[in-house]
Amino acid sequence: MTIADTDAALQAHLDANREARMVDYLALLRIPSISGMREHAPDCRRAAEWIANALTEAGLEHAEVCETGGHPIVYADWLHAPDAPTVLVYAHYDVQPVDPVDLWTSPPFEPVVVGDRILARGSSDDKVHVLAHIAAAEALLATRGSLPINVKYIFEGEEESSSVHLEPWLEQERERLAADVAIISDSGFFEGNLPAITIGLRGIMYAQIDVIGTDVDLHSGGYGGVVENPANALATIIAALKGADGRIRIPGFYDAVRALSEDDRAHIAELPLDDEEYRERIGVPLLVGEVGFTPMERRGARPTLDVNGIWGGFMGEGSKTIIPAHAHAKVSCRLVPDQDPATIFNAFRDYVAEVAPPGVTTRVEYLGGGSPSLTQVHHPATQAVSRALEATFGRAPLFVREGGSIPICSCFDTILDLPVVLMGFVQPDSHAHAPNEWMDLNNYETGILTIARAWDEIAVMER
Amino acid sequence: MTIADTDAALQAHLDANREARMVDYLALLRIPSISGMREHAPDCRRAAEWIANALTEAGLEHAEVCETGGHPIVYADWLHAPDAPTVLVYAHYDVQPVDPVDLWTSPPFEPVVVGDRILARGSSDDKVHVLAHIAAAEALLATRGSLPINVKYIFEGEEESSSVHLEPWLEQERERLAADVAIISDSGFFEGNLPAITIGLRGIMYAQIDVIGTDVDLHSGGYGGVVENPANALATIIAALKGADGRIRIPGFYDAVRALSEDDRAHIAELPLDDEEYRERIGVPLLVGEVGFTPMERRGARPTLDVNGIWGGFMGEGSKTIIPAHAHAKVSCRLVPDQDPATIFNAFRDYVAEVAPPGVTTRVEYLGGGSPSLTQVHHPATQAVSRALEATFGRAPLFVREGGSIPICSCFDTILDLPVVLMGFVQPDSHAHAPNEWMDLNNYETGILTIARAWDEIAVMER
Repeated sequence: MTIADTDAALQAHLDANREARMVDYLALLRIPSISGMREHAPDCRRAAEWIANALTEAGLEHAEVCETGGHPIVYADWLHAPDAPTVLVYAHYDVQPVDPVDLWTSPPFEPVVVGDRILARGSSDDKVHVLAHIAAAEALLATRGSLPINVKYIFEGEEESSSVHLEPWLEQERERLAADVAIISDSGFFEGNLPAITIGLRGIMYAQIDVIGTDVDLHSGGYGGVVENPANALATIIAALKGADGRIRIPGFYDAVRALSEDDRAHIAELPLDDEEYRERIGVPLLVGEVGFTPMERRGARPTLDVNGIWGGFMGEGSKTIIPAHAHAKVSCRLVPDQDPATIFNAFRDYVAEVAPPGVTTRVEYLGGGSPSLTQVHHPATQAVSRALEATFGRAPLFVREGGSIPICSCFDTILDLPVVLMGFVQPDSHAHAPNEWMDLNNYETGILTIARAWDEIAVMER
Repeated sequence: MTIADTDAALQAHLDANREARMVDYLALLRIPSISGMREHAPDCRRAAEWIANALTEAGLEHAEVCETGGHPIVYADWLHAPDAPTVLVYAHYDVQPVDPVDLWTSPPFEPVVVGDRILARGSSDDKVHVLAHIAAAEALLATRGSLPINVKYIFEGEEESSSVHLEPWLEQERERLAADVAIISDSGFFEGNLPAITIGLRGIMYAQIDVIGTDVDLHSGGYGGVVENPANALATIIAALKGADGRIRIPGFYDAVRALSEDDRAHIAELPLDDEEYRERIGVPLLVGEVGFTPMERRGARPTLDVNGIWGGFMGEGSKTIIPAHAHAKVSCRLVPDQDPATIFNAFRDYVAEVAPPGVTTRVEYLGGGSPSLTQVHHPATQAVSRALEATFGRAPLFVREGGSIPICSCFDTILDLPVVLMGFVQPDSHAHAPNEWMDLNNYETGILTIARAWDEIAVMER
């Protein structure tokens, strides 16, 4: 058979099995595998078992639900291409919480298909990639009887809750996971749904600030003017973290930041996205951020700080006249090379202690972190994935530095000594981490085809 | 009968009926009459009907559940002392919300008695005063067949939700409510449970700030550094409201504040409460407030500003990496003579608009207000209540400017042209508006006796 023949057979197989794939998609989305909430631990395990079974049914081997001490990691492989490269595939089956649930137009774990979209928590982040990898392998094995390369799959269950157990597991499984390149599938396309390969990811430092006043709420009449108000104090602390110029005021915060070269800036400036168009897409009155950098630079190549949640006191309808007993905020920083999450947390904690008003007790807790990463555009595997995308979409992909974090990226380099290529197919406005997360079903289908083509391209790449 | 005889008969009657009073207390506390929450409107009505019935059973007349357009006002009277003064009694039967309900040691509307305390929402604020007035009248009528004065009762159902319908109702009922003095029972004793008469109350201006970014939460990776974060923006606004010196930075905020005279300050300084002892009682590491004033001055005689609640984004366990779509805060100011709530709200709204960061939409909504008030220490009715307290407790009461607000106080002056005396019996650490609100049952019992004595004293006061 010629390459064109095998491609046609593959396409025909994918077309014939579209409905069965949808049944699987719906089944996996119905499992509420929220890794960050203890009560969903059984659901995470159920998702892992579902995936292990699907891997076996697809014709992959050694499928195993591996214990990690936390939510399990699913492993499987296919290792019958002795002279071909070995790829280690990574995606994750756990999902973000669903709050605020009342903003969902349908229940987050009851997926609905509307036109070309499937709506559910996890539909784009990141169950679609788990399924696309299984479907690509299934289609190749069904139409050719083999894969062109060796593939090892690991599907994690703690990506949305700081991947606590991944590093020790990678250390422990280093031999079993030996490969030539890691393909991480947890990313997506550029604005306008333009095919893209993510070459940069920001790191993250996630913390919680707790400001404690009293054991119980106080009457704001009886005590207003006498005690520090924990909610006011929290606002004072948060306001001190960032200036009106968008610069983070934590001493030392920018010390390790690798400056953008003229080349970097020129490359970013070339991305086909107008600021005004971008602003309109987001739906905000104004793009805001650090002075001296363009929105595209700020989004992928500069660090930032955001409150992810804030709460304290009375949040109901009407009025309640209290001084809250305590107030809380979740705050995270996105980090760029070469910022270190632990160093940034220490600086953050010390600065919060410095700016915290007297009269209340302020605590800072580390909730997780991950290092930033930049991958090699010129690596043969990156170029192979690029060719696969071009074959599917008829145009070369963009190379983009994204603002998000896949904290575990750096582990594949530091622990397994593997180059990393990010291959993902999610449209950019997917509402990941938000209500009404959705996935473009066309991207899912073309994604499967692209994975199969990427394996073919990697099979013949320079080594 | 001599006065001593009538007093002894009254005391004997009260002693004999203690258990029946407790049954009534428990019954009224079991009605969750939260006026600020729509779903509790039927409960407010139920409480009003319960009270009207209790008034009639006590021997009072013309008991009526009066429609107001909101929660009803209960009216009753006893007008058979033609040459004696007429007192208009006010208390309220509605209660604060119960959030955070998980901090209550028992369900807020399932009252429990532990030793000398009764624990339930509304036990001290303000159902105890409704019940004490009914019990005092019942005891006088039962032991003497008459009251020494004419009394008109109004028990409101919207005090905790800004008394929206009280003013028009007072206007409309001006003739029926004609009296010589208003007795408002919604206050309490001084620190250390020392008998006191409140002579000053702060006013209040209550508002909500809403900061809106986008329709849905954004991924903090994809958009961090590009858009203003509504929670960060809210913190910036709140931090701008008050300086580290405790001074409110809203332009014009202090313009109308009546300065404290040397006499005022000397009088406040004489109150028997040590700052350090006060701090320990509250349980905070430090007393904090406006520079240049003592804690006792700040608490009753100076205005202040407090966040009563703040919320936005992810408030659950663990981490969720979002930029909240919106963030909110409830903020209130306690006001002193001669600050006007409407003027202060306008200044507040304008200042928030001025300090709100660009890139988000900020709205400010007025949730209610009330004027500050100062009553006349030397009024014969104030002195009559003072003698009643002294007769019960063996010492003259303290005259205190309290930090709380009873916004309707000023209506009795402006609409009904009545002098106001605040007669209340709640211990100062009652957890009003907080979890585990409680009432000292000894204060309840001595309160009933004091009301009866106050009527006797008012009967013979100079006019």
